Amino acid sequence: MTEADFIAALRALPLHDGAMVLADDAAHLGDWVLTKDMIAEGVHYLAGDPPGDVAWKLMATNLSDLAAKGAAPVGAMLGYTLGDDAFDRAFVAGLGDACAALGCPLLGGDTIRVAGPRILSLTAIGRATRRVLRSGARPGDALWVTGTIGDAGVGLAIAKGEPGPDMLLAAYRRPEPRLAEGRALANTARAMMDVSDGLLIDAARMAQASGLAVAIDLDAVPLSAEYRSARGQDRAARMAAATAGDDYELLFALPDGECPPVAATRVGRFAGGHGLSVFDREGEAPLPAAPGYAHDAPT
Amino acid sequence: MTEADFIAALRALPLHDGAMVLADDAAHLGDWVLTKDMIAEGVHYLAGDPPGDVAWKLMATNLSDLAAKGAAPVGAMLGYTLGDDAFDRAFVAGLGDACAALGCPLLGGDTIRVAGPRILSLTAIGRATRRVLRSGARPGDALWVTGTIGDAGVGLAIAKGEPGPDMLLAAYRRPEPRLAEGRALANTARAMMDVSDGLLIDAARMAQASGLAVAIDLDAVPLSAEYRSARGQDRAARMAAATAGDDYELLFALPDGECPPVAATRVGRFAGGHGLSVFDREGEAPLPAAPGYAHDAPT
Repeated sequence: MTEADFIAALRALPLHDGAMVLADDAAHLGDWVLTKDMIAEGVHYLAGDPPGDVAWKLMATNLSDLAAKGAAPVGAMLGYTLGDDAFDRAFVAGLGDACAALGCPLLGGDTIRVAGPRILSLTAIGRATRRVLRSGARPGDALWVTGTIGDAGVGLAIAKGEPGPDMLLAAYRRPEPRLAEGRALANTARAMMDVSDGLLIDAARMAQASGLAVAIDLDAVPLSAEYRSARGQDRAARMAAATAGDDYELLFALPDGECPPVAATRVGRFAGGHGLSVFDREGEAPLPAAPGYAHDAPT
Repeated sequence: MTEADFIAALRALPLHDGAMVLADDAAHLGDWVLTKDMIAEGVHYLAGDPPGDVAWKLMATNLSDLAAKGAAPVGAMLGYTLGDDAFDRAFVAGLGDACAALGCPLLGGDTIRVAGPRILSLTAIGRATRRVLRSGARPGDALWVTGTIGDAGVGLAIAKGEPGPDMLLAAYRRPEPRLAEGRALANTARAMMDVSDGLLIDAARMAQASGLAVAIDLDAVPLSAEYRSARGQDRAARMAAATAGDDYELLFALPDGECPPVAATRVGRFAGGHGLSVFDREGEAPLPAAPGYAHDAPT
């Protein structure tokens, strides 16, 4: 089954009201927000990535989902597969760094020992004052994104051996969840989610959840100086950035003309209808076959 | 690292107060109780086990931890590794059965696709009125256990090909978390936990957490008629039952002379000191090399 088929099948099961019909990245229990992300060796991180960075990324990807709900971290439950001694020790040290730096203490968890690629899981619990869903965008709303896009995609290539600057590698291995920005946006964003699979695919998901179409201005997609230096900034380079995963920036909708309370770039606009379109100064750009990271690609 | 070493290392990290210094099977956030258990193919279930039973067991093992806290289930977050179509569909159906039968709706989760043995994870959230820890036993307290012990151990042998009755196989594949009993015991048990790794090892853990010694009366260990028929009831058979895992019964401490509000059997007694001892009508019984399921055995 594809991930979409599987989630569709789960929708037929007894669901908690707070599951938001499994259409969002987090669940709500009163003021509490819960999210769960798993990462697997060889899929979400490379076997050669430093264990401390793997721990950081596990925590950061989950906290990014909390950030997208405007939630403050409360604690996390760790699911860990024990492996070799050196990895385990370095992982714990990195997890401690992440707990301290990102303000999310450990609540508990479970460890198992099993052969095969390591699969790590975290459930992060946060607290929010308002429910911000990905489905709240309205026709005419502007689409904004924090930070820069595509850096982690180049970072992945660097982790695999391509030469390149540490900043891009760090974007892949130690993403910074936008917790402060998420809280600042909690009361103003009409819709919000994090960019984990790629700007285009995630924007398309927000549009679909909101029952709208979205048009992305490729020229507006924010690129770092390091990205431009590594990949350039032509249409192909911009399309590559907008379809790379692992950005962990916040994507949010605001009424047209409203300025966001955090540093962000306007990258698109919602309209009635459905579907994703991309344009730049040359006109409409053809959509790539894979507009983002495909969870369903067999490894 | 062993599981114990790993947990000891985690204790040096920033911990939430509700983590109870990682000494218990669940975390507390106000009235909420959170627990997380992972199960892996070839370790916690057999590759040939029916997928619906795997789903049931994943839910049941987590809810057993909630039962041990006297908590009522609120919802669960699923971590799922997608595999073949038939398994995925049967798993969803079994998960639906478990959600409905055990009163725990789905809250959300994450799916990934990765090669290697399937690892499944669940975070269950419950609500409790009082914190029941495993560390509250006092000298002189009696140790009680619900249900019968050892059935799932024989069930595992049956799942591997030994002939035997369906009841024992079901004890292994579809354990029934003692949710009603847990809630009934929440206000009276001084200490409580579930028996997941074996009666002896789990009793020793309760004693250690309480800073006490515990003596188990092997003759009192409750055996089902099916167990006795399959394994007999001599010292070796009783020791096998008391060291088999997967029972998911509740183990709890009550003041001496107090009767439990649920059906249970008195199997031991706490005293000052430390360590586990086992006796029967013939006198003290030598402890087996492995008093229960060892999480740390490499597979």
